[in-house]
Amino acid sequence: MIIVLRQGTPEKEIEKIKNKMESLGCQIHESKGENYHLFGLVGDTTNIDPEQLQANRYVEKLIRVQEPYKMANRLFHPEDTLISVENEKIGGGNFTVIAGPCSVESEEQITSIAKEIKLAGANFLRGGAFKPRTSPYSFQGLLGEGIELLKIAKEKTGLPIVTELMSPGMVEKFVDDVDIIQIGARNMHNYDLLKEVGRIDKPILLKRGMAATIEEFLMAAEYIMAEGNENVILCERGIRTFENFTRNTLDISAIPVIKKYSHLPVIVDPSHAAGLWWLVEPLAKAAMAVGADGLMIEVHNDPANAKSDGQQSIKPARFNSLMNSLKEMAILQDKVM
Amino acid sequence: MIIVLRQGTPEKEIEKIKNKMESLGCQIHESKGENYHLFGLVGDTTNIDPEQLQANRYVEKLIRVQEPYKMANRLFHPEDTLISVENEKIGGGNFTVIAGPCSVESEEQITSIAKEIKLAGANFLRGGAFKPRTSPYSFQGLLGEGIELLKIAKEKTGLPIVTELMSPGMVEKFVDDVDIIQIGARNMHNYDLLKEVGRIDKPILLKRGMAATIEEFLMAAEYIMAEGNENVILCERGIRTFENFTRNTLDISAIPVIKKYSHLPVIVDPSHAAGLWWLVEPLAKAAMAVGADGLMIEVHNDPANAKSDGQQSIKPARFNSLMNSLKEMAILQDKVM
Amino acid sequence: MIIVLRQGTPEKEIEKIKNKMESLGCQIHESKGENYHLFGLVGDTTNIDPEQLQANRYVEKLIRVQEPYKMANRLFHPEDTLISVENEKIGGGNFTVIAGPCSVESEEQITSIAKEIKLAGANFLRGGAFKPRTSPYSFQGLLGEGIELLKIAKEKTGLPIVTELMSPGMVEKFVDDVDIIQIGARNMHNYDLLKEVGRIDKPILLKRGMAATIEEFLMAAEYIMAEGNENVILCERGIRTFENFTRNTLDISAIPVIKKYSHLPVIVDPSHAAGLWWLVEPLAKAAMAVGADGLMIEVHNDPANAKSDGQQSIKPARFNSLMNSLKEMAILQDKVM
Amino acid sequence: MIIVLRQGTPEKEIEKIKNKMESLGCQIHESKGENYHLFGLVGDTTNIDPEQLQANRYVEKLIRVQEPYKMANRLFHPEDTLISVENEKIGGGNFTVIAGPCSVESEEQITSIAKEIKLAGANFLRGGAFKPRTSPYSFQGLLGEGIELLKIAKEKTGLPIVTELMSPGMVEKFVDDVDIIQIGARNMHNYDLLKEVGRIDKPILLKRGMAATIEEFLMAAEYIMAEGNENVILCERGIRTFENFTRNTLDISAIPVIKKYSHLPVIVDPSHAAGLWWLVEPLAKAAMAVGADGLMIEVHNDPANAKSDGQQSIKPARFNSLMNSLKEMAILQDKVM
Repeated sequence: MIIVLRQGTPEKEIEKIKNKMESLGCQIHESKGENYHLFGLVGDTTNIDPEQLQANRYVEKLIRVQEPYKMANRLFHPEDTLISVENEKIGGGNFTVIAGPCSVESEEQITSIAKEIKLAGANFLRGGAFKPRTSPYSFQGLLGEGIELLKIAKEKTGLPIVTELMSPGMVEKFVDDVDIIQIGARNMHNYDLLKEVGRIDKPILLKRGMAATIEEFLMAAEYIMAEGNENVILCERGIRTFENFTRNTLDISAIPVIKKYSHLPVIVDPSHAAGLWWLVEPLAKAAMAVGADGLMIEVHNDPANAKSDGQQSIKPARFNSLMNSLKEMAILQDKVM
Repeated sequence: MIIVLRQGTPEKEIEKIKNKMESLGCQIHESKGENYHLFGLVGDTTNIDPEQLQANRYVEKLIRVQEPYKMANRLFHPEDTLISVENEKIGGGNFTVIAGPCSVESEEQITSIAKEIKLAGANFLRGGAFKPRTSPYSFQGLLGEGIELLKIAKEKTGLPIVTELMSPGMVEKFVDDVDIIQIGARNMHNYDLLKEVGRIDKPILLKRGMAATIEEFLMAAEYIMAEGNENVILCERGIRTFENFTRNTLDISAIPVIKKYSHLPVIVDPSHAAGLWWLVEPLAKAAMAVGADGLMIEVHNDPANAKSDGQQSIKPARFNSLMNSLKEMAILQDKVM
Repeated sequence: MIIVLRQGTPEKEIEKIKNKMESLGCQIHESKGENYHLFGLVGDTTNIDPEQLQANRYVEKLIRVQEPYKMANRLFHPEDTLISVENEKIGGGNFTVIAGPCSVESEEQITSIAKEIKLAGANFLRGGAFKPRTSPYSFQGLLGEGIELLKIAKEKTGLPIVTELMSPGMVEKFVDDVDIIQIGARNMHNYDLLKEVGRIDKPILLKRGMAATIEEFLMAAEYIMAEGNENVILCERGIRTFENFTRNTLDISAIPVIKKYSHLPVIVDPSHAAGLWWLVEPLAKAAMAVGADGLMIEVHNDPANAKSDGQQSIKPARFNSLMNSLKEMAILQDKVM
Repeated sequence: MIIVLRQGTPEKEIEKIKNKMESLGCQIHESKGENYHLFGLVGDTTNIDPEQLQANRYVEKLIRVQEPYKMANRLFHPEDTLISVENEKIGGGNFTVIAGPCSVESEEQITSIAKEIKLAGANFLRGGAFKPRTSPYSFQGLLGEGIELLKIAKEKTGLPIVTELMSPGMVEKFVDDVDIIQIGARNMHNYDLLKEVGRIDKPILLKRGMAATIEEFLMAAEYIMAEGNENVILCERGIRTFENFTRNTLDISAIPVIKKYSHLPVIVDPSHAAGLWWLVEPLAKAAMAVGADGLMIEVHNDPANAKSDGQQSIKPARFNSLMNSLKEMAILQDKVM
């Protein structure tokens, strides 16, 4: 950490800061130019709260040299994290596809979609039971019944299931019934929920908040990991920008950036990123090409009558042909699919 | 609601959509030009799920004529909402000032700040007990003990207290001890928490999410109101943009926009918007000038040693002089302060 | 075009608007519900200025059914535009690679880079002679001399050249010496310059402005085409968002969106989008996978001593290996490369 | 300037960087911790190109201690710049109001508006003759004739005139006929135009680009000043964000930030920021309260028939009442109006 002092800081204040840093166990290297005066801190700086330092009116700037995340940091964990769920593996050289409808609507719907995506080669079944909706008047999901229907679909196809948890009070039920617990974009900053799922040992699929920086995204993963659960899968699903032709702007660059700085697997959700079904296929291919570890795709047998997100869902036949294209690309990209 | 159909939509599909709309209780006015074909829906359109309609591949566009919020809508509630807390009033022609430290740190700290802001004319004491922090390694607040210290400060000064709730599990304690319950920006999309505080009758101070549109902000208020709690105070605290000189970009225009479309009181938090103490004063004045119903300001007796947000906190003396300026402006703005 | 009137618009005002629209040659279909009153306009609406209509205080909303661009619109020109420059073709099923340094620095530099990229299979040589720089104190390019050096490099390698034009006064020189004239992101809204290059017949490489929507980008192309020059190549180079790990956020979705709505070729500049050399390769592959018509890549033999943009330039050896990967992918994507 | 080196940088590379910096006339203070290695540069660092340094793969970060602008920097010019135009003064303790229609449409229109705003107390008349429009098919202004009509309006009212210049080729005419030359938001990055107006001695009203940071805005002013013209007035007119209820998001915080870092006068354009006439009044007051040096407001006698921007124009009567409110506020704000 480097502290840049304001020009003309009184000697007395300089001493105060020095003493404080030394009392926190850091050595100080002072460096003084015509236009600046700075301290380079040597030693363990983890006890220093950067915000508190910046509140000092004599501190002009504070420069972090290291990333603020530790457990999610590739620096301290150079190998890719590999997450195993039943017979499936996520991360490493694998390319994992999670597919299914936005919402679970009926036993017939979820089992028939599950069968079709299974045939096409999907690895996991997704389906929302508890739905975070912008309007309190929109369909909020089948709730507990939705989970039961997912379990039936799993029984019939063998596909492990992924579904979203919104409330700390439901954690136990999800641990029992769900294979991967999803934390949605709207709850990426819900730290109480993150801590809660940090205390269990189910894999967590964490979606990037719609205005979260890459660093904040990794800090949210850190919240989960710091409580003991290291099985975190990150999911890029688009960020909010001024461009509103698409529902969100898929931040494709985030994939290689995260893979460089973290060892966690990263997948892409082209359906939510685009919000338009005809963009799912090209974006899914781009995700494969850029080095993602997998995809989460909304598939619906009857999008026009879907209870949610029909506009961004593709039909099983299109999903099947997309899977075939991806399998061809996987060879060039050295991915197991 | 207006449905614009894609050019060349087959007659059969047109009939299907017509029948569906009629079955939902709407009459249809058809309008056809060379380049478009549209249905204007007459009657109660609240049973129509816009997302489902848009999923129909023959629907080009869907145009809402009415706002999606009802209880928060000024159209159905033309009078300003006035919220009473002990002897204080929020909304209507009042200008309410909530002040205090970011975090409650000790009895001495919170009571001394409370006394000073009381003298300067503040109406409420704020202070964080449960703190949402980007890093799991940062100070997370004094938790329950923080609430106890706030109660002591209230006892000594008479100032009712405002503090943030992060977890549905804590609602009961907050109902007992707190005068206004704050829902932070990071939880504006945490619908389970919104529903929870919708079922109580304490006033809720709802902060705008950092990437929430004005409409989504009002929909979050609607979540609370739809459960029965109509005492919602909205708080603009800056949105995230490409400009990062300031921590956030204060969306000053949001105040008159919200006041036009909603009857709820709207206050401004210049401290979080700017992230820099020397911007608090000019932004607070701008908030008064633009028509806000009040302010929430971070005040700390020793910002350089504050446990959080010291960089954006002003000292009691500066707060006092700001209050004097605001009182002068209040006369021109026809506000009671 | 659909006009939504404000509730309670006086009959007199309704008549005025009706008469005005009819005088402009449009028929009106009126549609009236409980909550709305609207006019659907039938006939040629191109004489109607939407801004003027919206200024009418009785007009609540105005809904455009058609895109505002005509010549760039695929609706009126379903076939892909194919642009020929010497022996090279851009658009259609071709995948075109433009490569070279950010700035032309010396004869030795530009010719040696040109030779290396030629060997690797690049189709065009790029190099800045006139450089738009944020600071007036930064290197502004070799100006006219830079153009001369590009011509020498072209002579030695046969690669046609692409370079940026900043001033209307230089158009004639560029027409004589340059094969494709680039309009940079900073000048995408410089309408006088767009009109100027609309009057010549050289192909124009138009970069997207850093905060331009896809529609505004196509309208900038329309400015050029409306003057008579239909040889426009669009270039997505990242947009400005809150995420600043990368210099810009590559809007990868813009490629399939533009290709659906326009017949013009679209290429991607991963170097400017990312601002970091190690992101160029994955982003270039993503561009191929998403369906782009080509790439523009910064290549420098000595990035650490480049006069500009060294941080985002790759070396010739890496460019060569990237080209090999792209050629493999091109087969799957049905692109000629 | 501070250079942070990557961990494990070879000694040879360290020496290379050291030697280069010393050859550019800087002394180096080295500082080495467990996790970092840095150089603090002492002496004149203006010869160092930061981009070039960052291109060195061994440089982890580069930290500027000083702002990159010099002539616009308050550090080197602590007094407010005061600009005189005929009898009017801009900057210092003055509050200057520029008003008029978006476009000059006819002699009758411009002179009648000029008379009304003059009566209400405006200091300058604005009116567009050359209009930058998103669509090539929209009204582009009366061009040269518009300038002539502005001159007539000036003759009749004595109000000096402000109008936008779009092309370097028109500079001479503008120098002869116009009192303050406006550079629009779309041309803030048009460096050739900035240099051109830097060589004349007319005051320049420079609008912030819609996605320009505050620093880039000041660098655009620096382009003008570096050529010799120090009479620059800055104008905040809103930035582009995800919020699109308003045309742009007025960055009200930018005013006090710019006034702290620069000595140039800063005014606010609430009309373009909001895009909605009913927001002009509250935003104008907020601009006064936050410390702006003036306003630029669109006033039209018949907004519903304005050729451009009618939606954001206010009528003369409303302008008059706004001026009265501002005059009252000016007393509290210590502004001469």
